Amino acid sequence: MAERRTRGGRAARVQARTNPPPVYLPTLNRAVGPIDLLGPEGVEKIHNAAMTILETTGIEFRDPVALADWKKAGADVDGERVRIGRDMLMDLISTVPSTYTMHARNPERTVEVGGRHSIFANAYGAPFVYGLDGVRRPSTLQDAHNFFKMGQMSQALHVPGILPVEPQDVPVPQRHLELVHAALTLTDKPIKGSVLSEQAARDTVDMTRIVFGEEFVDNNVVVTSLLNCNTPLVWDETMLESLRIYAAANQPCLLSPFVLAGASTPSSPHGGVALLIAESLAGMAYSQIIRRGAPMVLGVAIMGVSMKTGAPMMGSPEPGLMNLLVGQMARFYQVPWRSCTMWTGSKSPDLQAGFDSANTMWPVLLGGCNYIVHACGFLEGALGVSYSKWVHDALQLENYHRFFSGLQEENIDALLADVDAIGPGGHFLGTDHTRENPLHMNPLQNNDSYEQWEAEGSKNADVVGREEAQRILENYVQPPMEDDIRGALDEFVAKKRAAYQPTAA
Amino acid sequence: MAERRTRGGRAARVQARTNPPPVYLPTLNRAVGPIDLLGPEGVEKIHNAAMTILETTGIEFRDPVALADWKKAGADVDGERVRIGRDMLMDLISTVPSTYTMHARNPERTVEVGGRHSIFANAYGAPFVYGLDGVRRPSTLQDAHNFFKMGQMSQALHVPGILPVEPQDVPVPQRHLELVHAALTLTDKPIKGSVLSEQAARDTVDMTRIVFGEEFVDNNVVVTSLLNCNTPLVWDETMLESLRIYAAANQPCLLSPFVLAGASTPSSPHGGVALLIAESLAGMAYSQIIRRGAPMVLGVAIMGVSMKTGAPMMGSPEPGLMNLLVGQMARFYQVPWRSCTMWTGSKSPDLQAGFDSANTMWPVLLGGCNYIVHACGFLEGALGVSYSKWVHDALQLENYHRFFSGLQEENIDALLADVDAIGPGGHFLGTDHTRENPLHMNPLQNNDSYEQWEAEGSKNADVVGREEAQRILENYVQPPMEDDIRGALDEFVAKKRAAYQPTAA
Repeated sequence: MAERRTRGGRAARVQARTNPPPVYLPTLNRAVGPIDLLGPEGVEKIHNAAMTILETTGIEFRDPVALADWKKAGADVDGERVRIGRDMLMDLISTVPSTYTMHARNPERTVEVGGRHSIFANAYGAPFVYGLDGVRRPSTLQDAHNFFKMGQMSQALHVPGILPVEPQDVPVPQRHLELVHAALTLTDKPIKGSVLSEQAARDTVDMTRIVFGEEFVDNNVVVTSLLNCNTPLVWDETMLESLRIYAAANQPCLLSPFVLAGASTPSSPHGGVALLIAESLAGMAYSQIIRRGAPMVLGVAIMGVSMKTGAPMMGSPEPGLMNLLVGQMARFYQVPWRSCTMWTGSKSPDLQAGFDSANTMWPVLLGGCNYIVHACGFLEGALGVSYSKWVHDALQLENYHRFFSGLQEENIDALLADVDAIGPGGHFLGTDHTRENPLHMNPLQNNDSYEQWEAEGSKNADVVGREEAQRILENYVQPPMEDDIRGALDEFVAKKRAAYQPTAA
Repeated sequence: MAERRTRGGRAARVQARTNPPPVYLPTLNRAVGPIDLLGPEGVEKIHNAAMTILETTGIEFRDPVALADWKKAGADVDGERVRIGRDMLMDLISTVPSTYTMHARNPERTVEVGGRHSIFANAYGAPFVYGLDGVRRPSTLQDAHNFFKMGQMSQALHVPGILPVEPQDVPVPQRHLELVHAALTLTDKPIKGSVLSEQAARDTVDMTRIVFGEEFVDNNVVVTSLLNCNTPLVWDETMLESLRIYAAANQPCLLSPFVLAGASTPSSPHGGVALLIAESLAGMAYSQIIRRGAPMVLGVAIMGVSMKTGAPMMGSPEPGLMNLLVGQMARFYQVPWRSCTMWTGSKSPDLQAGFDSANTMWPVLLGGCNYIVHACGFLEGALGVSYSKWVHDALQLENYHRFFSGLQEENIDALLADVDAIGPGGHFLGTDHTRENPLHMNPLQNNDSYEQWEAEGSKNADVVGREEAQRILENYVQPPMEDDIRGALDEFVAKKRAAYQPTAA
């Protein structure tokens, strides 16, 4: 709070004029799309294929507790292989809510997940940053703090996440403490939870209980966490431990097969989607054995694999088509779904990065995705986060939010009167309608003349983005938090930090 | 032909391996979309508004011949203002074909326009280039030649256009001769026609008659030309002179209002679209007075206008929504439609350029656009063409072609057998299916590790694109043309060049 109090008087008024506070966008309520590529028969075909995979091939749960749970629930368990009949599976997932409300500690930032709603969350887990100077280096806790601050200041980013970068200067057992504490105190938006370990998941839930209250957390969603399935057909112990903690606490997870089409799944849309649907639904079904009715999200992370080098490819067409299919299948199962976007293999926030980012966003939004992850910052095939690209991406989200909100009501008779009054050769710059319906503008989109641009330093988008990131960080305002809550959070972290000393090397 | 004969023996075989000849993509037959934003009532509302504009406000034809033609046809002509009743207008446009075939001199490059078909044409008319060295300078005839060559070598670009850049080193009265000659001889794809003047249009048609034969040209489309309406509500003499030449020759024009939403039209989608539809349909109706049944294309060029600087904005959301509406209206009128894409205000092929380009392409393809112009090369708000961006854009077109071609048939049982055989923890890299269904790859998309990328020179997309443009130009192969046709073309141009001497300064 100290930062805020120092900003009084004239300086504050100048500040507010040149750096107006963010005008937060609500949950996107899509009015464009979704696109359904399949007829009912096509949907049935993929559904049958997914069910056949789970019934015949089965899926591995590499975790003794999960295997015992499945056996008790009546599945066919053979070693680590679990075969699940379609009736059992469909019955289990039938209690997953089709929509849920994800609460922020500031109720004005609360969002909706599912149905026609879409929300944006930023990049997740990169070990490197491309700094304010543009130079690549290992990421630190300070970077994570900066991205939380930038997330708080972004108008369109709904969820600033939990692991904007890996803080490599913090010992592994303590990382989740620092990150959850920072997410809860530097932002007042909804957060993700840690899935580093069972203890990390438990600590995340405990910290949300400090902030929201125990009873509220038991009855409402306050965190959503990201779990990956090892495609093909393996759920591992670490992920399942976290899933149990979150499901038991009534907190959803994004159950996300990690798909490299052509490597971890078949290269083509139908086959790949059947497989990843089977995997995600198996995880979702398991969550309902833990707690019936716990919200869950059908998740996917889809890339292609380069047949030349084996590297992941982002922005290529087949994963785009797969996203449309996953969306249609999620609507068939009546569950929310999550996908990834705005990523690129480029090592620079350049032309390729722009194309790849946009070309991964459009199919995801057209597929009607509800929970859109990695929407700000990624470069280098998800290994790096760029300060510059982060701010560009965040502004692009406003653009997509506007487009997918669709048409507004218009008084066409008044417009015809304008056309008639203005007539041939006139212009509409001064009409009431134009003044009252300003076009969406991206402040980082440079549309000046070449001469003007040159006179201002010939800055390309990378430079412009880094300057803007600097400006945002300088103007960050920390959201208030009640002193007793803040005290309890600090105390929790201090105690746990002492307990989680890294083992000496 | 000399260039080809020198390439024999071993050198030719090595060449073919490292620089394989292009594999040309056919007309895109869209299987994804189109997206209809309006119900039947919404369509009727925009239609009524457009008809009301033409009936009540009217539109100016600043051309005595056109005014006489309209009077004779029965329209209400008052000075330069023409008011057209809806019955008359709808009757006139009813004879515009909903689809047409645009013939190339090589029948394998012939394309379809209308319906579910989409074709791509490159940038048009820029006075500046960003050269192979990345430096901006006035464009020359050599640049135009280079872009024709690059157009010929592109797999996805269907129409290499006619004015890839303005050749500023050629006197204005001779420019169309050099450009049409180059388009017809350096490429064997379909071309655009010149609209510089009545004479330029006439010469274009005459040159196509030399290549295709008089009777063929009278009965088939061999050229499509771009005409702009001066929005709001003015068709000028130069454009109408060209329109008369082309319509009389049974050759279509892209009848394109130049829209700066918020300046030349209302800022909001319904009103802007009603106005531009009225303008384009008025031009189209006039074409049918010239020749009933001549193919024509409803055209649009839609940008927003910055409320801060008045500059055009490309890649913002409202023009995207307007494109969806125009597509739906074109389907209502059962005419093909044309739009613009892949453009940007950026002065560098950077992150902004990538976002703007992609964000203008997606709505155009989702709107079901048939004739997609400016699909390669633009920077600087259409004032500059970049060699680097050109090749990146051309490869992105392959990406969009693949995505919008939609799903292919798949043998799901065979895929299930693969999944079963591979099982948990395996991979699909070696399956027959993966080998037979390789994922689409963009050779300029860098997905290497950071270390590999650094070892190879840390090249960003701009550098990579310029190197690729150089490689393409070095490997260009001129398509053959019969000697007598080539001789007649050369003779035509030589004679006209002598006749069109620029006036001394």
